[in-house]
Amino acid sequence: MDKKCIDYTLYLVTDRRQMSSETVEKSVGLAIEGGASVVQLREKDCISREFYELALRVKSITAPRGIPLIINDRIDICLAADADGVHLGQKDLPCREARKILGSDKIIGVSAALPEEARQAQADGADYLGIGAVFATGTKSDTRPVTPEIIREIRAAVTIPFVVIGGINSENIKQLYGLGINGAAVVSAVVAQSDITAAARTMRKAAQGL
Amino acid sequence: MDKKCIDYTLYLVTDRRQMSSETVEKSVGLAIEGGASVVQLREKDCISREFYELALRVKSITAPRGIPLIINDRIDICLAADADGVHLGQKDLPCREARKILGSDKIIGVSAALPEEARQAQADGADYLGIGAVFATGTKSDTRPVTPEIIREIRAAVTIPFVVIGGINSENIKQLYGLGINGAAVVSAVVAQSDITAAARTMRKAAQGL
Repeated sequence: MDKKCIDYTLYLVTDRRQMSSETVEKSVGLAIEGGASVVQLREKDCISREFYELALRVKSITAPRGIPLIINDRIDICLAADADGVHLGQKDLPCREARKILGSDKIIGVSAALPEEARQAQADGADYLGIGAVFATGTKSDTRPVTPEIIREIRAAVTIPFVVIGGINSENIKQLYGLGINGAAVVSAVVAQSDITAAARTMRKAAQGL
Repeated sequence: MDKKCIDYTLYLVTDRRQMSSETVEKSVGLAIEGGASVVQLREKDCISREFYELALRVKSITAPRGIPLIINDRIDICLAADADGVHLGQKDLPCREARKILGSDKIIGVSAALPEEARQAQADGADYLGIGAVFATGTKSDTRPVTPEIIREIRAAVTIPFVVIGGINSENIKQLYGLGINGAAVVSAVVAQSDITAAARTMRKAAQGL
């Protein structure tokens, strides 16, 4: 996988608790059918073995379709399952340490809410950023919204691609058009919908306007 | 650190919730003073960054004293903090995958309660085993006691060293003498005591009779 050529337009984040489909891998397959271009496996409170086996099952869906699979937080799960990369929050392992462990080929994404965090992540070897939360969200309650002004500052501060995350749907995303954003990361707007493929298709179209 | 020469006699397992001392690293220092010969950092519900920083602080205590530091479950934390190894439960990453990630120098311990699990762990590259629970324990509630008969079977099944774990104190450990056990792993018998160093000293003496 060429890290430089990843299409971040519709970045799907999983959450078993919100999924309308019976398995994570089925949800992921349906979302890819609708246009999801990156998949992040984010499963909190998951025992290591279970997370690993889930990663292998999801990879069997993403890999044949050429979709990058990113593991939230757990570098060891990424290595064991040979996923494409990891996504690190500000409370996960430092990006610099992650890069040492993962080498240059794996993708590393870092969450940032401030220009300084974004700059630091790029300096520490991040390949992309997750910026948010841009809207109020049920998934994460400890975050203040990142405004369009802050997004503009972040865009000016770094050269790597970034996706926005947090309460995004196919309507409110229009408020974020023209800010230089590379894609939208979504959880509930896709996986919690009864027709995941249709929801992904709608979301993809909306995200292409970014 | 020569993996073949590790003294497993008194294998300390941490648990912040049970600790009498104000910090994990202080408890570890006091326990080493009393004779703890291996330290396993086992902290559940710990965010990755916090676990990593804790591992670095504990390593600053163990490393200068030549005491191996083992990280529970998290191979990525072991690598990031450059600890001496990991301990894997049956629900953690498979030992074989862990060995691929960690290479041959890091110590890998595996929990086992059955001779078959012990044999498999050795075949998968484990350096030592944690056998238990040998007595009823407050730390883990989902385990049935491993009897002296099973310990004898395990001893006959593998050549690698093993420690026993689960509700061990300086009195009941005498029931386990003469079974070919290499050491005792303890949590509350040391770290929950008001004088950690004295408790470790008593426990060490009792474990030397194994």
